[in-house]
Amino acid sequence: MRAANRGNMEHRQIVIVPNVSRYAEGSCLIKVGNTHVICTASLDNKVPMFLRGRQSGWVTAEYGMLPRATHSRMDREASKGKQSGRTHEIQRLIGRSLRACMDLSALGEMQVKIDCDVIQADGGTRTASISGGYVALALAIKKHRDSFSRNPIVEQVAAISCGMLNGELLLDMNYDEDSQADADGNFVLVSSGGIVEAQITGEKSIVSSAQLTEMINISFEGCKSIFSAQREAIKG
Amino acid sequence: MRAANRGNMEHRQIVIVPNVSRYAEGSCLIKVGNTHVICTASLDNKVPMFLRGRQSGWVTAEYGMLPRATHSRMDREASKGKQSGRTHEIQRLIGRSLRACMDLSALGEMQVKIDCDVIQADGGTRTASISGGYVALALAIKKHRDSFSRNPIVEQVAAISCGMLNGELLLDMNYDEDSQADADGNFVLVSSGGIVEAQITGEKSIVSSAQLTEMINISFEGCKSIFSAQREAIKG
Amino acid sequence: MRAANRGNMEHRQIVIVPNVSRYAEGSCLIKVGNTHVICTASLDNKVPMFLRGRQSGWVTAEYGMLPRATHSRMDREASKGKQSGRTHEIQRLIGRSLRACMDLSALGEMQVKIDCDVIQADGGTRTASISGGYVALALAIKKHRDSFSRNPIVEQVAAISCGMLNGELLLDMNYDEDSQADADGNFVLVSSGGIVEAQITGEKSIVSSAQLTEMINISFEGCKSIFSAQREAIKG
Amino acid sequence: MRAANRGNMEHRQIVIVPNVSRYAEGSCLIKVGNTHVICTASLDNKVPMFLRGRQSGWVTAEYGMLPRATHSRMDREASKGKQSGRTHEIQRLIGRSLRACMDLSALGEMQVKIDCDVIQADGGTRTASISGGYVALALAIKKHRDSFSRNPIVEQVAAISCGMLNGELLLDMNYDEDSQADADGNFVLVSSGGIVEAQITGEKSIVSSAQLTEMINISFEGCKSIFSAQREAIKG
Amino acid sequence: MRAANRGNMEHRQIVIVPNVSRYAEGSCLIKVGNTHVICTASLDNKVPMFLRGRQSGWVTAEYGMLPRATHSRMDREASKGKQSGRTHEIQRLIGRSLRACMDLSALGEMQVKIDCDVIQADGGTRTASISGGYVALALAIKKHRDSFSRNPIVEQVAAISCGMLNGELLLDMNYDEDSQADADGNFVLVSSGGIVEAQITGEKSIVSSAQLTEMINISFEGCKSIFSAQREAIKG
Amino acid sequence: MRAANRGNMEHRQIVIVPNVSRYAEGSCLIKVGNTHVICTASLDNKVPMFLRGRQSGWVTAEYGMLPRATHSRMDREASKGKQSGRTHEIQRLIGRSLRACMDLSALGEMQVKIDCDVIQADGGTRTASISGGYVALALAIKKHRDSFSRNPIVEQVAAISCGMLNGELLLDMNYDEDSQADADGNFVLVSSGGIVEAQITGEKSIVSSAQLTEMINISFEGCKSIFSAQREAIKG
Repeated sequence: MRAANRGNMEHRQIVIVPNVSRYAEGSCLIKVGNTHVICTASLDNKVPMFLRGRQSGWVTAEYGMLPRATHSRMDREASKGKQSGRTHEIQRLIGRSLRACMDLSALGEMQVKIDCDVIQADGGTRTASISGGYVALALAIKKHRDSFSRNPIVEQVAAISCGMLNGELLLDMNYDEDSQADADGNFVLVSSGGIVEAQITGEKSIVSSAQLTEMINISFEGCKSIFSAQREAIKG
Repeated sequence: MRAANRGNMEHRQIVIVPNVSRYAEGSCLIKVGNTHVICTASLDNKVPMFLRGRQSGWVTAEYGMLPRATHSRMDREASKGKQSGRTHEIQRLIGRSLRACMDLSALGEMQVKIDCDVIQADGGTRTASISGGYVALALAIKKHRDSFSRNPIVEQVAAISCGMLNGELLLDMNYDEDSQADADGNFVLVSSGGIVEAQITGEKSIVSSAQLTEMINISFEGCKSIFSAQREAIKG
Repeated sequence: MRAANRGNMEHRQIVIVPNVSRYAEGSCLIKVGNTHVICTASLDNKVPMFLRGRQSGWVTAEYGMLPRATHSRMDREASKGKQSGRTHEIQRLIGRSLRACMDLSALGEMQVKIDCDVIQADGGTRTASISGGYVALALAIKKHRDSFSRNPIVEQVAAISCGMLNGELLLDMNYDEDSQADADGNFVLVSSGGIVEAQITGEKSIVSSAQLTEMINISFEGCKSIFSAQREAIKG
Repeated sequence: MRAANRGNMEHRQIVIVPNVSRYAEGSCLIKVGNTHVICTASLDNKVPMFLRGRQSGWVTAEYGMLPRATHSRMDREASKGKQSGRTHEIQRLIGRSLRACMDLSALGEMQVKIDCDVIQADGGTRTASISGGYVALALAIKKHRDSFSRNPIVEQVAAISCGMLNGELLLDMNYDEDSQADADGNFVLVSSGGIVEAQITGEKSIVSSAQLTEMINISFEGCKSIFSAQREAIKG
Repeated sequence: MRAANRGNMEHRQIVIVPNVSRYAEGSCLIKVGNTHVICTASLDNKVPMFLRGRQSGWVTAEYGMLPRATHSRMDREASKGKQSGRTHEIQRLIGRSLRACMDLSALGEMQVKIDCDVIQADGGTRTASISGGYVALALAIKKHRDSFSRNPIVEQVAAISCGMLNGELLLDMNYDEDSQADADGNFVLVSSGGIVEAQITGEKSIVSSAQLTEMINISFEGCKSIFSAQREAIKG
Repeated sequence: MRAANRGNMEHRQIVIVPNVSRYAEGSCLIKVGNTHVICTASLDNKVPMFLRGRQSGWVTAEYGMLPRATHSRMDREASKGKQSGRTHEIQRLIGRSLRACMDLSALGEMQVKIDCDVIQADGGTRTASISGGYVALALAIKKHRDSFSRNPIVEQVAAISCGMLNGELLLDMNYDEDSQADADGNFVLVSSGGIVEAQITGEKSIVSSAQLTEMINISFEGCKSIFSAQREAIKG
């Protein structure tokens, strides 16, 4: 049995507290079970070099964990002087996922920087970051809606994991499940029904095409509650 | 007048929420007005090289700010690849302050790492980190009290700022006050009545010996509420 | 029409030259059209810290590009002092993909380091690196087969891309296609018919579940020639 | 007894050799006992970004030690690729201290960079750096006095340490004393009688308010000889 | 006897394959025995800061080795985050050598970046890089000859090593010879008969003035074949 | 005419002050005209990894310049986080040169670290570092002579530059001459009459074999005074 008698297709409790930051244009605290992430969206008039003068905006993301967000303390990346490969991989995923929900030209020459900082980790930090990052982004755009001639947000994006353990598919794995999983999938989906990013990894096992299809279906089902929690938080 | 009709000798509201981390041996969230810091204490069997085999322990601290803890977003230190001089200065101050309340030999060959991560900043992040760091440290020691033959904590430590603005002394300055201050003092004090660290800086003005004495007296008075909030949080 | 009258389901010409390195335990030069990658496998008696004494081996990968592997010269990562997020992401993908084909406990306490260095890039460098990395790995294991009580290689792994451009699915996109693609998928597959890694990204478009299934089918078909070229190269 | 029969209130011999550098706008070698520091002041037309166009200047400082300035050789910071926290802390202190003696707007858009390089260390390197840095700064301003409509130097600054060892207060501790001290204070004072910076640290002991007041008084007394040596050196 | 019955004054087989890169303005693969280096020349409109507005161009070089170019795998410099002292030394030598063959003012405000990447190493990688770098440079200039009012290349440059082993002088040492050599010399020469760079190192032995003269004579003789192979490759 | 009516074959005044460091096993301040370098030798029981257990010692060198050792202030390498290519090149040259005068096996498992820190630069800092580094090394060995069964120093080493300017050969160029020189040579020589290192660079001109021979002869002549000043300093 899963912890807290959770069913295989059941996600953990999702709580999204909007506007947790006094300063950020948009922000939220997202809790998916014991995984807690602070997400902020910061508007910036400077776009990256490759977009200067192109009448288009950009969305980028950075990801971090507090050193004691995990069971045993991890070294602080700022003090080591470099971000890990895992951090790079995750923040690129968040950035691509959130750009996919945007009409970047509607942003004008404006950049949105999404910061996802994990306060406490129990599996699924990258998917929680995407789901929460979307809320921060949407709140920032909503607050500054007058600056844009049309709404730069064109899709609603959320993410969830679905993995395989002992031959069973499990939605929204926690850390214990994740660390033993045969295969792990992260799915970034839009509320209108499509895939923005899908990453399936079989470190210990190999996934069939049919299993992948089922993972996706389960994830679409699981994302429904997240979409609803996001809308609630943004309506705020 | 100060914001919220605060008197010159009045500190901001202090809230200490203990045990906010599921994993850390000790932790708290400390709020001093709009300054919010998560403090965790992590016990580690490895002492620094210079203490190996010396039957003595160590307490060290690291400090960080979320990129959007401030009015405008700061670059993430992990992504820049180096910690700023300000960060170095602050984390050294926290470490020295917390070591001063300890009987390090009672720790045995054990190291406590204090992480102070500023979630939101409105002046006084270093003093809040020390006051909160003490609570995290005390909670960690309390939880593992059986591992030590005698209590390694011998003093109660808290910190507060007192500065000078337009010729007046102000306790516990917020960011707006701090950024215009003529002089700024940070005082780390023990509940038994003594000074652990005092740092007085006059960037725009010069402080007389009498003014410094008065700053210290005001700070001792101001720390009383912090000592009491700390005891409440540790009793938990 | 695609360059060189290539059909949408047609991959570019694949050439694998085995044993190009005088020193490496295993090596090849893989050419997929104008994308050329030198792959080497180096055996090492030192496993990473987390595996010491666990009777298990490890496979890890590093990825790099010569500065002028691309249209315009890129800065050399060694001279900039850090690897880009893209490099981190790719080398982690290669490592996971190649571990998936291994029985790591059959390796004993031995590490294999796969180096994939792109000499010339025209799209698909990460998939070529995986396909070539497998050959280098297999050649190294073959050469030292006597050191292992059973064959540590349990699956044959190859990778190919399949993307979407103007509503059409295209196998094995070159750089020009890739840079305009609406969606991009990289598929790491085993010859016994299963998925090791799948990464689908829709920066400009959203992928339906049905499209994803078709991408996978096309990729399985496309990998057949790679599997065959790999076997040829390993047979030597 | 202290080394060389020194009394508790007695400072070590102070020698300031002005103009030791052929190139720097201002420079000196300051010797406080066996602590020897070369201080240079370099004028620069570029102010830091945050002051551009503000009609105001800046003073900043950098601090370093030769690897064998100490009993046992320390690693070279340039070769390790980062400055220690201690170095950061000290160079920030020097910069703040020297800015406090300046009318920065009288500088115009000009920056003065003070370099303090410790040739030999025997305790008190930060205070010697401040006292010597003032001389280098004053000599540079004197040499280029015609460039400024009024004198940018408005106070004379010097620094000295006063610590506590075995219950006694000691002025200007050397390394042996410093490493055993119960408490350590560094005082940056102006000749007109005021405190620019005071940092009191009680790593092993706690300081009373009365002791702190006495430390300050002793330091004011001790700085008199430094002020006089500075004036002598600047007069040239 | 030397490997492959080579005489002491005999160089290894030299092969220069021009235009190996699809993108670089000039390129070649140079093979000197088992030492193989890919050299590319990239034209860039941006000259270094110190030449801006000076109507003069620049040639600079970077050098790298694939991790498994050597007997045992070396750590990747990009992953270590810094280039070794050896790399710095070599790339500075290549840059100076190639600037010596140029009329930099004929380049106009144009920079040529030479990349020398060692695919396989068996001694003499720096001399092969210079000889191959010249070919890449010459091919790039030839291709863009119309951009320059006169030919910026004024000399033909090549390099070779000559060392001392057991009292005998040996031309063009391979790795085995080099690692045992008593003295090692690298000579960068022009076809019109002169020395551009000469570096003689006696780690285990001391070289007489007469021996140095003989080394130079042998190297001039040895470079003749390289000059001829270069001309062949450039003629294309 | 050269500055101070110096003849072309005349070196600048050489002063070597031995034992300038209170702590280093050996040290000196060497002045060659206005070029001033502090050299220290530090004995260390730890040899580099590649020599562990080999009964042999090592000599290595590090080189640095104070930021204002030059006409205009250079950025501090410790603060930039990396040493320049020039620094790497020079410290490798010093290390090789000093190893050449040693019987490394007579050192036993002992490492000598030579630090050369340029206090003031006026051309020829690398040659002054070698000449002064030899004195520091010899003084350290002399002081600890009892630790070695035989004298590890077997040759006396010094270095001097000889360059070409307007067709004339000049011994020991200062900065002004060096920055205009057509060719520049640095010669590391032994008192018994031989070449340890020779580096000849023709950035603007090409050197004939005959000119090189003459440069060497001039350098041997010029080194005589340095050898004599070294002996004087070591005799102490």
